[in-house]
Amino acid sequence: MSGSEIQRLIQHLGKLPGLGPRSGRRLALHLLKKREQVMRPLIEALQTAEAAIKICQTCYGLDTHDPCSVCTDPRRDGAVLCVVQDVADLWALERANVFRGRYHILGGVLSAIDGMGPNQLTIEALVERIKNKDVKEVVLALNATIDGQTTIHYLIDRLQPLGVSLSTLAHGVPIGGELDYLDDGTLTTAFTARRTV
Amino acid sequence: MSGSEIQRLIQHLGKLPGLGPRSGRRLALHLLKKREQVMRPLIEALQTAEAAIKICQTCYGLDTHDPCSVCTDPRRDGAVLCVVQDVADLWALERANVFRGRYHILGGVLSAIDGMGPNQLTIEALVERIKNKDVKEVVLALNATIDGQTTIHYLIDRLQPLGVSLSTLAHGVPIGGELDYLDDGTLTTAFTARRTV
Repeated sequence: MSGSEIQRLIQHLGKLPGLGPRSGRRLALHLLKKREQVMRPLIEALQTAEAAIKICQTCYGLDTHDPCSVCTDPRRDGAVLCVVQDVADLWALERANVFRGRYHILGGVLSAIDGMGPNQLTIEALVERIKNKDVKEVVLALNATIDGQTTIHYLIDRLQPLGVSLSTLAHGVPIGGELDYLDDGTLTTAFTARRTV
Repeated sequence: MSGSEIQRLIQHLGKLPGLGPRSGRRLALHLLKKREQVMRPLIEALQTAEAAIKICQTCYGLDTHDPCSVCTDPRRDGAVLCVVQDVADLWALERANVFRGRYHILGGVLSAIDGMGPNQLTIEALVERIKNKDVKEVVLALNATIDGQTTIHYLIDRLQPLGVSLSTLAHGVPIGGELDYLDDGTLTTAFTARRTV
């Protein structure tokens, strides 16, 4: 079956998240058929990104600079920190264009099953950051999952003694959501947290 | 949003078949987080494959050699040719280990909508190959789609004057298939082509 080089490429592609042996084969074929238009530019983009992208040692985000452009942007409010699980969450909030403070990326959430304890996350760095910089408010923007909520409780215990104002995201019916299709947990939360108009 | 290098990588990944902006972001993050274990080996596999893999000028398959290992394998029967649409179909037949002759890859099927005429396919090379080599049988193993079947009819018209024996794949109930879930076309074909036991 034609060449161990193809096999190796298929294996590497098929191990990426969300892909499998079948999509690996499909991608490898697509790349080998369009070498000039697709394969070469992809290799170059991978090489450039690998060489240029660093982890910001302040917020643990990804950028070409350390500290990153968010941490050094003077128009952003350094007094408000938004704690997120992952860089993808930072990107999601930036796309929504909803927050003009700075971020802190935990690198995960507490999870006994995945062996993630407080020392695997950037919690100590967060505590130091709040102590040393003039941080007044911390938004705990973690996922509404069990692990996310457990981590929020842990963070509240750790950060409350520091005297910062803490907040979490609101839960309720998502915009465009139909009640009939919502799970009981979301409906109960939305009903309990109803607001008088 | 952190670095045009990441954006470029996300764009290139998101344009691959079966992926989109969301999975592009996910892949880019995964790669940048696991540079040593995933990103570097993937870049190397891509580079090696790009440099090493050639198109076989006999069957139009992919291999590190031209002619490819299938075309040069002396244990394979050069008198039987299997015509397939794409390299992926060759791989599927090789996985099934069902055919010990040689292949010919058309590079597509006739399709007015996609602008694929006989000249975009390797049909002339197939005719030359049948004329010059001692080919006795040609299996037309194209997809059971409208375009695939149209191409089979065209190929029968072109190849019948050459005096080779032509065959197509059998249609019917797939192994493990439940009648209740089959489409009418397959059921009708299977019923019409029923075999006495």
